[in-house]
Amino acid sequence: MNRINRRWRLARRPVGLPTADDFTFEEVEVGPPDEGEIVVASRWISLEPAMRGWMDDVPSYLPPIKLGAVIRANGVGEVVASEHPDYPVGTWVVGGTGIQSVVRTDKVQRFRVINPKAAPPSWHLGILGMTGLTAYFGLFDVGGPREGETVLVSGAAGAVGSAVGQMAKIAGCTVVGIAGGPSKCAHLIEDLGFDAAVDYKAGKLSAALREACPDGIDVFFDNVGGKTLEIALFGINDFARVVLCGAISRYNDVKSDKGLRNTGMLIVRRGKMQGFIVLDYADRYAEGVTRIAGWLAEGKIQAPKETIVPGIETFPDTFARLFSGEKLGKLLIQV
Amino acid sequence: MNRINRRWRLARRPVGLPTADDFTFEEVEVGPPDEGEIVVASRWISLEPAMRGWMDDVPSYLPPIKLGAVIRANGVGEVVASEHPDYPVGTWVVGGTGIQSVVRTDKVQRFRVINPKAAPPSWHLGILGMTGLTAYFGLFDVGGPREGETVLVSGAAGAVGSAVGQMAKIAGCTVVGIAGGPSKCAHLIEDLGFDAAVDYKAGKLSAALREACPDGIDVFFDNVGGKTLEIALFGINDFARVVLCGAISRYNDVKSDKGLRNTGMLIVRRGKMQGFIVLDYADRYAEGVTRIAGWLAEGKIQAPKETIVPGIETFPDTFARLFSGEKLGKLLIQV
Repeated sequence: MNRINRRWRLARRPVGLPTADDFTFEEVEVGPPDEGEIVVASRWISLEPAMRGWMDDVPSYLPPIKLGAVIRANGVGEVVASEHPDYPVGTWVVGGTGIQSVVRTDKVQRFRVINPKAAPPSWHLGILGMTGLTAYFGLFDVGGPREGETVLVSGAAGAVGSAVGQMAKIAGCTVVGIAGGPSKCAHLIEDLGFDAAVDYKAGKLSAALREACPDGIDVFFDNVGGKTLEIALFGINDFARVVLCGAISRYNDVKSDKGLRNTGMLIVRRGKMQGFIVLDYADRYAEGVTRIAGWLAEGKIQAPKETIVPGIETFPDTFARLFSGEKLGKLLIQV
Repeated sequence: MNRINRRWRLARRPVGLPTADDFTFEEVEVGPPDEGEIVVASRWISLEPAMRGWMDDVPSYLPPIKLGAVIRANGVGEVVASEHPDYPVGTWVVGGTGIQSVVRTDKVQRFRVINPKAAPPSWHLGILGMTGLTAYFGLFDVGGPREGETVLVSGAAGAVGSAVGQMAKIAGCTVVGIAGGPSKCAHLIEDLGFDAAVDYKAGKLSAALREACPDGIDVFFDNVGGKTLEIALFGINDFARVVLCGAISRYNDVKSDKGLRNTGMLIVRRGKMQGFIVLDYADRYAEGVTRIAGWLAEGKIQAPKETIVPGIETFPDTFARLFSGEKLGKLLIQV
């Protein structure tokens, strides 16, 4: 039986914020699997800021998406046809589906089998997947928070930020989040247990941060970069750790004329600023998933917020919501 | 017997590069020591970029120099009068003399006794003092170079940079220095054993660095900051360590409109950028001095270059040479 694969390919390198013209939508037929192949029907596909970086033709920790190639992305799906003994029909998997509705492949190692009954399958794209693991390794391995310290998180209402804040509370820290708008800030405090929240859209970020972090900042988990990073650096304590998880505000900057002007604070405060990529911790994913699943079961981490947008055809517009702030928690396309 | 103390005080906070008007020179009489006091005659006084930072009224790892106070500095001197049993006349000491020719004090703990015969006394202001210890702890503890790695040093012809490069060679690394002008670059290779040198004054620093570091940069010991740091960051390898030792190019920037625009490289390369202050290693100074003295004795570290300027009255002009590059090695005033 042939299936129709609906997919998005990269038409050209975006300049700044991607638009629909940067992508090509098409429908192609997918035949039945050959020996050793499986066919996976995508159910949910995760949209992440890192994808914007992969669209540029610059060296990075993964090669750029080739022009004409399907957009790289992770998804959860179900095996709907199989000629591989380890992946019978009905198996649920998580892995590199790309932005497409049907994947036929013999590269089964790009998928990991999941139990769809232990937790909602889409959580494997979030709190039990790269998102949660990014928060876990970034906070604990790179940030190294100690009980009683102040942990500041930017992009705190986002998927990674929400997880970081809750994990920092588990570690016994005072947790302050930066987010955009009063409703996100209320969510951080009321639903996620943050000690304070700062609305960057309200202006006067420096003064607001000083008030929210009266004892200074020991760990800054930065999902944002740019001006926020510069302002936060002025508030770090001696021996602070700045975890660079992403730089959403910069990914779409074609020619930014402003950079970080206060790296000298790292000298004055003997601070450390360190970037990391969750892929480097692949041999410890099981440890992370086990601990996060435990915290979810104990109610120490809230069931994650998801913004689910139906329809793979919405990809360009839905992707843009990552950068405009119009979403809460993990952004997913439902196929 | 009264002595004449010739000293420089801070008249006002400098804006940008300090000028003579920012300081006040005066001669005052110093009487004989009271019970528990010593009188030290300064012989050499060390001038260091960090002093510029202390002249600003901004929070730092040491409090700002107060307006009207003697300029903070380290010197080597001889006890010329004493009412303290542990510091008899003729004892040589190193410590916080300030920019003045005679110090009378009961705070003897600010001085450490040295042996003037084991090595030239002025070396205790350099390779056997803060300079050498800064290189030692910054390179080995913060940078963590491994055999076979490439270590890049900026300000490489300076006192700290020269020591860093030689220590990195001892560690079995490929060592590349950045310095200004052909004669400094030749000095790095011919006298200090660097593998390559890049003349930043020759322009095209990016291309020159790529050529000098064909295997990329594993450790960047940065004494300079600013544009040099940005360019070097583009060349770092995975898991590189950037040691922020100073930011000479920035200390005198009143309002720089350019900052570091590529902190994203730290994410892509999983790099670490860390500032440090040698004072934090005070409990390990003996370890550092012992090792450095051993390397000097074995000839693995060259006898340090010193630029010695006679006359404490030259302080403002001599201090400016730190920032104009008109010196080689350690800059000292001979009193």
